[in-house]
Amino acid sequence: MIKCLKGNILFSETPEKLTVKANSYLVIEDGLVEGIYDNLPEKYKNCEVTDYGDKLIIPGFMDVHIHAPQWLNKGVGYSVELLPWLEKYTFPLESKFKDEDFAKKYYEAFVDELVHSGTTRACIFASRHYEATKLLINIMQKSGIGGYVGKVNMDRNSSPELQETYEDSVNETIMLAEEFSDCNKNNDLVKLILTPRFVPSTTSELMEKLGEIAEKYNLPVQSHLDENLDEVAWVKELHPDIPSFAEVYEHFGLMPKDRTIMAHCIHNNDREIEILKKHNVLIAHCPISNFNLASGIAPIRRYMNEGMDIGLGSDISGGHTMYMPDSCVAAVSASKMYHVAHNEYAPLSFSEAFYLMTKGGGKFFGKVGSFEAGYECDALVIDDTNIPKIDNMTLEERLEKYIYTGSRDNIVKIYCRGNEVK
Amino acid sequence: MIKCLKGNILFSETPEKLTVKANSYLVIEDGLVEGIYDNLPEKYKNCEVTDYGDKLIIPGFMDVHIHAPQWLNKGVGYSVELLPWLEKYTFPLESKFKDEDFAKKYYEAFVDELVHSGTTRACIFASRHYEATKLLINIMQKSGIGGYVGKVNMDRNSSPELQETYEDSVNETIMLAEEFSDCNKNNDLVKLILTPRFVPSTTSELMEKLGEIAEKYNLPVQSHLDENLDEVAWVKELHPDIPSFAEVYEHFGLMPKDRTIMAHCIHNNDREIEILKKHNVLIAHCPISNFNLASGIAPIRRYMNEGMDIGLGSDISGGHTMYMPDSCVAAVSASKMYHVAHNEYAPLSFSEAFYLMTKGGGKFFGKVGSFEAGYECDALVIDDTNIPKIDNMTLEERLEKYIYTGSRDNIVKIYCRGNEVK
Repeated sequence: MIKCLKGNILFSETPEKLTVKANSYLVIEDGLVEGIYDNLPEKYKNCEVTDYGDKLIIPGFMDVHIHAPQWLNKGVGYSVELLPWLEKYTFPLESKFKDEDFAKKYYEAFVDELVHSGTTRACIFASRHYEATKLLINIMQKSGIGGYVGKVNMDRNSSPELQETYEDSVNETIMLAEEFSDCNKNNDLVKLILTPRFVPSTTSELMEKLGEIAEKYNLPVQSHLDENLDEVAWVKELHPDIPSFAEVYEHFGLMPKDRTIMAHCIHNNDREIEILKKHNVLIAHCPISNFNLASGIAPIRRYMNEGMDIGLGSDISGGHTMYMPDSCVAAVSASKMYHVAHNEYAPLSFSEAFYLMTKGGGKFFGKVGSFEAGYECDALVIDDTNIPKIDNMTLEERLEKYIYTGSRDNIVKIYCRGNEVK
Repeated sequence: MIKCLKGNILFSETPEKLTVKANSYLVIEDGLVEGIYDNLPEKYKNCEVTDYGDKLIIPGFMDVHIHAPQWLNKGVGYSVELLPWLEKYTFPLESKFKDEDFAKKYYEAFVDELVHSGTTRACIFASRHYEATKLLINIMQKSGIGGYVGKVNMDRNSSPELQETYEDSVNETIMLAEEFSDCNKNNDLVKLILTPRFVPSTTSELMEKLGEIAEKYNLPVQSHLDENLDEVAWVKELHPDIPSFAEVYEHFGLMPKDRTIMAHCIHNNDREIEILKKHNVLIAHCPISNFNLASGIAPIRRYMNEGMDIGLGSDISGGHTMYMPDSCVAAVSASKMYHVAHNEYAPLSFSEAFYLMTKGGGKFFGKVGSFEAGYECDALVIDDTNIPKIDNMTLEERLEKYIYTGSRDNIVKIYCRGNEVK
């Protein structure tokens, strides 16, 4: 099936420069971008063209790190850092997801806000609860958008209400893998991901078993790495025989090559950077959360110089906003504050931050996040009529102004894999 | 005239802790807060009570640093730092305000957005144009909100289209002082403020004359100080005989005691801090602008420890949002990043940032920004129904959640000096 969208098309091929096609035709064949044309080629003359006039057509936003059960907590609790924050705010709320009615209500609200924020793919942490995680997968499957959902594994150092046993954690994870790993094989929009919370929450025994499950079912893995200095010290205490935090995941087989996301990566040492590169780990950069929890600033320019893969994460509820342009702006801000302290690392440009929010994070989902030929067509149509224009404004400037000063209300249409979502 | 508002009342008396009066009566007499009561005293039984039910009633937001003619530029141009940014983006736009039709159109839009953002008082830089500045004063006078407006003075180092002569600058400033200094004497809502752009833009001759005008008409002064290291070096080059940037203003009489605002104050040395304290200068902290232009982070905790006066500024268009809660959140974020680099300075709490946004900045306008008895009653009524609530949420948490995740659409009523604006 062939569709065609007409408008001002902007997307990233490289971080350095936006690709801009004014008043052009985006041809979509079976959900994939076939090409972009100034004039519609003869062979597509009979295709239905949706003309978006002077509006902007951009890739859907990619959120590569978000916690669905923390949705209710966004915007409160930023008076403490990571570890006390988990105890005081996060664990009590997540423990409520054992109640399926509660889970249904708030996961529906979460997915609804995700869709309306223009996020077309997300890597989502559920809670540790099996039933609620299935519910979330089902709600995501109905939503029209895609991504990965994982049941959190956590069999140590949590609150009594939330902690699970080793046996339950393994059994429930295997049950989910049996039920949903076909979604991964079939390249469904919504897939399963293994989700050990972070090293302090998972016993060695459990991490070892999860590593086996990752291999057996060919599942991707998401977790947290080097977010906070107290956390890093705690990991060292828990695993004195393993040289670094990253190597704990590596040791237990939880860093499968080309299919691992690690959130934050603020305090990584050189050795850990080499390990991330070796396994081609995608870094989920979550600048708003890193601000809120006083975690620090990730050296993103250094990672870019090293050729590493990077996407942006809202990290609800460490972050307080699911609307990814806020994280795009914060990524630029964070890089500027990093530059002030480390002059040798240049700030991110707007184009680079936009790349991270789209094609950078999109890589984890396949060929997603760009409009190059062969990419799955996730697209947002942006009506920026209510944003005041300067004379002779370029399309790049219109996009920048929308990202900085617009809101989710400017998103008037959403496509995921070529299908209309909103 | 006596009015009474009923609802959940929250405000700052000190930075440390919000004052919270659940389901209480705010009694306003002739625009001033008379008192807050659990039960309406007998003597007010016949007053009209506006019952806002479960809504929040908080002080209006105080924006102590904003450039009205830069409104159209917000959200573009953050690829460069301060000095090239002025050349490339700011001066070309400001030069258009010689055209009165252009000025009218965009100053009306600016004031409209200011009002709808919940800002009830602002310290505003106009452009250097006399007629356009009068227009802006008139538009502000009709708006129902208050603050200071200043014609910018700039007779050196600007673009040819924008730069003025010494004579024009002095004459037009005196004309405005003659026309509007009565507004200051009479404590009108909208007053005049002297506004030398910054040291590099004003010759010594002009600064000296402006110092005389400040004294003669008893006018307050606003300008910029120690925003950017290239700027600081330039000031040193221009005034090699004066030991510091701050002392240039002091030397020319442009730091009148208790009535001076200096924006940014990021790179101040110890000597300058003593000078600011001596003259009781209000620091306009503009964290979003400081992020966008990679200026650095002002050491706000240090200034608070020193007992200095501080308010928050949106600094449009260095900043990209006029909605002051964004600056409140950014002030907390900036302080956390400062804390990460300087462990001895604790981050700002939410309560402290809220204080800066209300009572801190409000001090420059008189007794404004709080609901203590005798304060001018600037109030916002916040309907947070659409913000999801956690069980047993306190009113402080509801306020924090509104500030972090709400928008200007949650503001349903605005009062300035006791009068309804919206």
